[in-house]
Amino acid sequence: MCTTMNDLTIIEPRICELVRELTDAPATGGVADALRPVMSEVIDQAVASSQGGKRLRALLSLDAFDALTASHHDTGSSAHTAMLDLACAIEVFQTAALVHDDIIDESDLRRGKPSAHRALEHTVHNASIGRGLGLMLGDILATACIEIARRAARHLNNGDAIIESFLTMQREVEIGQVLDLGVEMTPLSDPQALAAASLNVFRWKTASYTTIAPLLFALLAAGVEPAKAQQQALAVGEPLGLAFQLADDLLDVIGSSRNTGKPVGGDIREGKRTVLLADALSAADASDQQELRDMFEAAHRDEQQVKRAIELFGKTGAIDRSRERISTLWKQSQTAITDLELNESLDESGKRRLTEACARFIPIDLR
Amino acid sequence: MCTTMNDLTIIEPRICELVRELTDAPATGGVADALRPVMSEVIDQAVASSQGGKRLRALLSLDAFDALTASHHDTGSSAHTAMLDLACAIEVFQTAALVHDDIIDESDLRRGKPSAHRALEHTVHNASIGRGLGLMLGDILATACIEIARRAARHLNNGDAIIESFLTMQREVEIGQVLDLGVEMTPLSDPQALAAASLNVFRWKTASYTTIAPLLFALLAAGVEPAKAQQQALAVGEPLGLAFQLADDLLDVIGSSRNTGKPVGGDIREGKRTVLLADALSAADASDQQELRDMFEAAHRDEQQVKRAIELFGKTGAIDRSRERISTLWKQSQTAITDLELNESLDESGKRRLTEACARFIPIDLR
Repeated sequence: MCTTMNDLTIIEPRICELVRELTDAPATGGVADALRPVMSEVIDQAVASSQGGKRLRALLSLDAFDALTASHHDTGSSAHTAMLDLACAIEVFQTAALVHDDIIDESDLRRGKPSAHRALEHTVHNASIGRGLGLMLGDILATACIEIARRAARHLNNGDAIIESFLTMQREVEIGQVLDLGVEMTPLSDPQALAAASLNVFRWKTASYTTIAPLLFALLAAGVEPAKAQQQALAVGEPLGLAFQLADDLLDVIGSSRNTGKPVGGDIREGKRTVLLADALSAADASDQQELRDMFEAAHRDEQQVKRAIELFGKTGAIDRSRERISTLWKQSQTAITDLELNESLDESGKRRLTEACARFIPIDLR
Repeated sequence: MCTTMNDLTIIEPRICELVRELTDAPATGGVADALRPVMSEVIDQAVASSQGGKRLRALLSLDAFDALTASHHDTGSSAHTAMLDLACAIEVFQTAALVHDDIIDESDLRRGKPSAHRALEHTVHNASIGRGLGLMLGDILATACIEIARRAARHLNNGDAIIESFLTMQREVEIGQVLDLGVEMTPLSDPQALAAASLNVFRWKTASYTTIAPLLFALLAAGVEPAKAQQQALAVGEPLGLAFQLADDLLDVIGSSRNTGKPVGGDIREGKRTVLLADALSAADASDQQELRDMFEAAHRDEQQVKRAIELFGKTGAIDRSRERISTLWKQSQTAITDLELNESLDESGKRRLTEACARFIPIDLR
């Protein structure tokens, strides 16, 4: 009996345990007494920063693995235990990426608490040392997640391909961050290019580790040959990951009953160059286009402007266009699941289970 | 015929080739036209930042491997080729660490050229985006070096232990950076504690990847059982690595015919808390101790103060104490080599070769 809730109950303390072990100094040498306090503060912050995630990525990987191995499924098996750790590794990687993302964006908050570097600045009463510790904390977590994946992969099929895929995932997200910074420098004068660039960033920065890699790890661990596993993880995961990010951006504008943890219009306030903005610029008449450009080329936007931008996103049809994009991508992902031809385990019920796991990424009214 | 010069000739272009491949986006997806320029700038900077190292660590690993496998040595062998790549991976890791180190220290220069984040700030004409790109460049290189090591390890003995050791090395250096930031906050009122803390930082931040890991990789690749390999790499590498860092700090104060690339007294100017400073504070009379504390607790030190600090380092015997420390550690490392009991390949001539490789880390007049 392995339910999603059961997995969640196991994942949280396991992430904490792994992070605490792998952010501390190895046993081959001690830490000097005078330096123990700073080490403890970094370890505690590593654990604090690791908490509060929705674990969507870990659950996708675990559910996909269960769907793919239904016929010989055993919760207590070494393979299931290893998959749980591999799922934790994805989550620890996300934390590592967010810690650096918050430094780059100079964000004060993450998941409603102080971001890691801000918390450390506060703890050590020194902004520059605190920020340095935050940067190193991101590095330590990025190394830790690979070690977690390496240990897990030894007990899974295609172990070497899993480590290779994990490193590729990490590289893709890092490149996605570079491209995301590039988008900030993309002129608003060519909305088509901006939309293409934004979707390209979603492929690398979001779909990579949110959907493609979790599915790929499950396929590899289930014994699917690496080239085929990669092709099928991309077929299902790429449209799903793009739809997830588009939905996230859309909910930021139209709001949601689901608590996204962000105030409505936050992306607009920050001047983020989104697909929504690109679609609005593409469809706007000359006067609305100019208004949007002036607004987003300015250093700041006030509440009145945020409201006006949302109005223009609606008026130009950009919101409807995003709904269309999400629904099309979701259907594409579903078709890819239907077309999966893998092994005897993935029967109709297995595919249904996989579809349900994927559906968690897209609110029901946007599918 | 495999000489050190031959290895150096191969290492440089190989690092460039590997870095160029692994900082670009994988073939499973393209980069949007509008974002190609920023991607190219980051790749070019990755290559530029990778150049100019002395490759001491790579050479130690290669020479140790050759010394350990002399009896069945073959330059063109797949093992030697894989060791070359593993040696490159250590160098790429160093570059990754230096890129983040320069961000933390807000250093403008590295190896006589603009540091990576400064160069990128200049290229994109935007300080905050340039710094973000620099941070991501460090992340990309840190991931790239593990992928280089993973590929190499597949062709070597103890492949999985090599990857594990590579990740441990990375974690040790990252923890060393945390502790180094901790030393900056250590009060000058307890010189003994300061000396212990500084030496502890040297163990993690320097010895780890400079001497211990390069020796460990060679031992593992030569087929030595992992637990024994680790014990022997520590026995030789830990004192050698500490001596190397002490010598580096000493040369910063007394100068050297060898070009260290830094002006004399640079560490003092920056207010760095070194073992030299701790030894000077320990041995100083009350008045000299107060003078040193006032100097190093101030935000800046002028040329006159730098000169005076050097004078006090001499007068208190701290410089002689450092010479003693270096010479003792060097002898400890040499004794450990003499005591090595590994395999038939490591005969007297092999041990001589290993000693010569280690000697590169310590100037002859300090041994």
